[in-house]
Amino acid sequence: MSNLLIIGAGGVSRVATFKAAMNDHIFKKIVLASRTKSKCDAIAKDIKERLGVEIETYEIDAMDVDATAKLISDTKSDIVLNVALPYQDLAIMDACLKAGAHYVDTANYEHPDEAKFEYKEQWAKHEDFKKAGLMALLGSGFDPGVTNVFTAFAAQELLDEIEYLDILDCNAGDHGYPFATNFNPEINIREITQKGKYYENGKWKEIDPMSVKFKWNYPKVGEYPSYLLYHEELESLTKNFPSIKRARFFMTFSDNYLWHLNALQNVGMTSIEPIKIAEGCEISPMEFLKKVLPDPASLGPRTKGQTHIGVVATGYKNGVKKRYYIYNICDHQCAFREVGAQCVSYTTGVPAMIGCLMIATKTWFEAGVKNMEEFPARPFLYQLNKQGLPWFIEELPTEGLPIDN
Amino acid sequence: MSNLLIIGAGGVSRVATFKAAMNDHIFKKIVLASRTKSKCDAIAKDIKERLGVEIETYEIDAMDVDATAKLISDTKSDIVLNVALPYQDLAIMDACLKAGAHYVDTANYEHPDEAKFEYKEQWAKHEDFKKAGLMALLGSGFDPGVTNVFTAFAAQELLDEIEYLDILDCNAGDHGYPFATNFNPEINIREITQKGKYYENGKWKEIDPMSVKFKWNYPKVGEYPSYLLYHEELESLTKNFPSIKRARFFMTFSDNYLWHLNALQNVGMTSIEPIKIAEGCEISPMEFLKKVLPDPASLGPRTKGQTHIGVVATGYKNGVKKRYYIYNICDHQCAFREVGAQCVSYTTGVPAMIGCLMIATKTWFEAGVKNMEEFPARPFLYQLNKQGLPWFIEELPTEGLPIDN
Repeated sequence: MSNLLIIGAGGVSRVATFKAAMNDHIFKKIVLASRTKSKCDAIAKDIKERLGVEIETYEIDAMDVDATAKLISDTKSDIVLNVALPYQDLAIMDACLKAGAHYVDTANYEHPDEAKFEYKEQWAKHEDFKKAGLMALLGSGFDPGVTNVFTAFAAQELLDEIEYLDILDCNAGDHGYPFATNFNPEINIREITQKGKYYENGKWKEIDPMSVKFKWNYPKVGEYPSYLLYHEELESLTKNFPSIKRARFFMTFSDNYLWHLNALQNVGMTSIEPIKIAEGCEISPMEFLKKVLPDPASLGPRTKGQTHIGVVATGYKNGVKKRYYIYNICDHQCAFREVGAQCVSYTTGVPAMIGCLMIATKTWFEAGVKNMEEFPARPFLYQLNKQGLPWFIEELPTEGLPIDN
Repeated sequence: MSNLLIIGAGGVSRVATFKAAMNDHIFKKIVLASRTKSKCDAIAKDIKERLGVEIETYEIDAMDVDATAKLISDTKSDIVLNVALPYQDLAIMDACLKAGAHYVDTANYEHPDEAKFEYKEQWAKHEDFKKAGLMALLGSGFDPGVTNVFTAFAAQELLDEIEYLDILDCNAGDHGYPFATNFNPEINIREITQKGKYYENGKWKEIDPMSVKFKWNYPKVGEYPSYLLYHEELESLTKNFPSIKRARFFMTFSDNYLWHLNALQNVGMTSIEPIKIAEGCEISPMEFLKKVLPDPASLGPRTKGQTHIGVVATGYKNGVKKRYYIYNICDHQCAFREVGAQCVSYTTGVPAMIGCLMIATKTWFEAGVKNMEEFPARPFLYQLNKQGLPWFIEELPTEGLPIDN
């Protein structure tokens, strides 16, 4: 039994808190804190009504290490789930070290003014966590997160070693707006506007944004144009599985989405350079755009269709070339009916809770800063089936597919 | 912590066993038994692979009271979930009395050769269960089951008392076959071919089969023709809530389904009178039809769309007329991905497991033979949200709707 502190009160937090409350035989106490206490209260009220479970709520500025450490101690929390903004990762990790709590997050640290997507600064805290006997589990969302576990499963049980890795992320949801982003819009747009990057023969190769694409058939969901872009799990996966010769990440975007995004880029609306509005008042076009676009949280009730995210791992098993596709399908409306948030939040929030559950039950436990693929995949996969994210394995032909190019 | 014995190995059993395995912090041991052990083994294998939980399996003839009592004792089971055929209810209840186990089922006792849908014979065992300090929970499926709990919730928390009760059951699923039944075909066809019956001012009124219908708007699923028919929960609900002036049950059927069914009836294929094939070999047209029609279990992977089942309760609250609609929406494909069975099994199997969980945790506990609505609704409703069947409440206008007629 653990006491869990969840920091952040967006869609992912909503899902993780609901799912933790559904596992209240493991989480003795659940505490929810964010900059805006009223957002925490709204989630707590829903959970009380729908599940009969009490959630404690607090206001916290997660950039304030001392205040966060005090909150951890005051609430006797032994695990902290960070589902706030990725800018706050390092501060919350420091608060955990100070107060003696384990740490879980879903996305790597981001500089507020620079899009790097690197684990470097979080990994640098490994010795500190190790000395303190604490564990930090990085990237326990879907991608990164479940994609790392799928990859680990291929390496641990399906193949002797992985040679080629392709991660394919499809959101076949339709929210009915002409243009909207389904996650924190800033992170979403940053992913697309940066150069694409993939790993081949020990090196990182850059390509122009959205310049490599193919159509991929997502089983039971359909064929969608899928674009090569950089995604943070590639960094840890290529490090932890040195047999990998090539690792890539693809995501689907509709033509309509890209057309709007191009227009916004062309007029400078995706820049993160602050613009002065008046004395002492400045805002970047990206920040301003966030205020103009539909709130991602408002998409939930409107979005229909599914997400389909999986990993294709190719390699040899007993001398025979094999290719396995491991994937999850999540339905936006089903997720919304269950927890009041659609799949983009659901597929991140459920694994975030499972990461905490792995530590709480000591199923995964080793002091230090860890990535998901460093642990046995199977117990996590069991929990995915148990907690609402069923997954499937298909064997694919080893040649003749678009990913071969 | 309880040891749970599940009898039966069809779609509902599959769901209930999966869901029990997902709650293995409550069910210390899960045992699955049926006439055909290989069916149990197939379910156990899936659960082992997907959830990592061990299920013990046995062959049992549930009509053999002594053998069933011995199995209960040998496996140290303290709760028996009967999801076999309703013909076997009385025998399994007797086995529970003999071995000292609590009993849960999802449908009332049926004579093998007569369609009565009555609780009489099961209620007659009340004193025996009471004396033995054992509980029998009847009808813990969706309808009966969740519909009883929804009704109890309206009576306990929404209205001073219920005057009008309408239960509405919509299966908006499409399996792509010209004709198939989605549950045990015999029960399914019996429900439709018997006379319709509803309760009004203390009396039961009969109508010709399928002779009363209207179009009803099932929120978020659509408008479907809905037919008045008799359903067993009406018996216990009108007994336990004597304020009810009128209680009815409606179910949707497509024109295509009814057209095929009429043709089968016209040629005598729905009769349950045995026909002699050869010396010592006879079979009823209904039993034969079951062999010809697609196996209900095969519909799972094919069926798309949702089920939408709910209760409209009308009455007064503090002198003001009020009408509440409490319902669940379940998606066939989402259910299939989670547990390998579609909604018709899912919506029955999940509440079946929850009924056992209510007894295991002593949340609902009173010696004797009990119906669902005799207990506080709220803890069961929390579990519905937690275990995959989210529910919703809407306030409806108190006049101008088709149910007013």
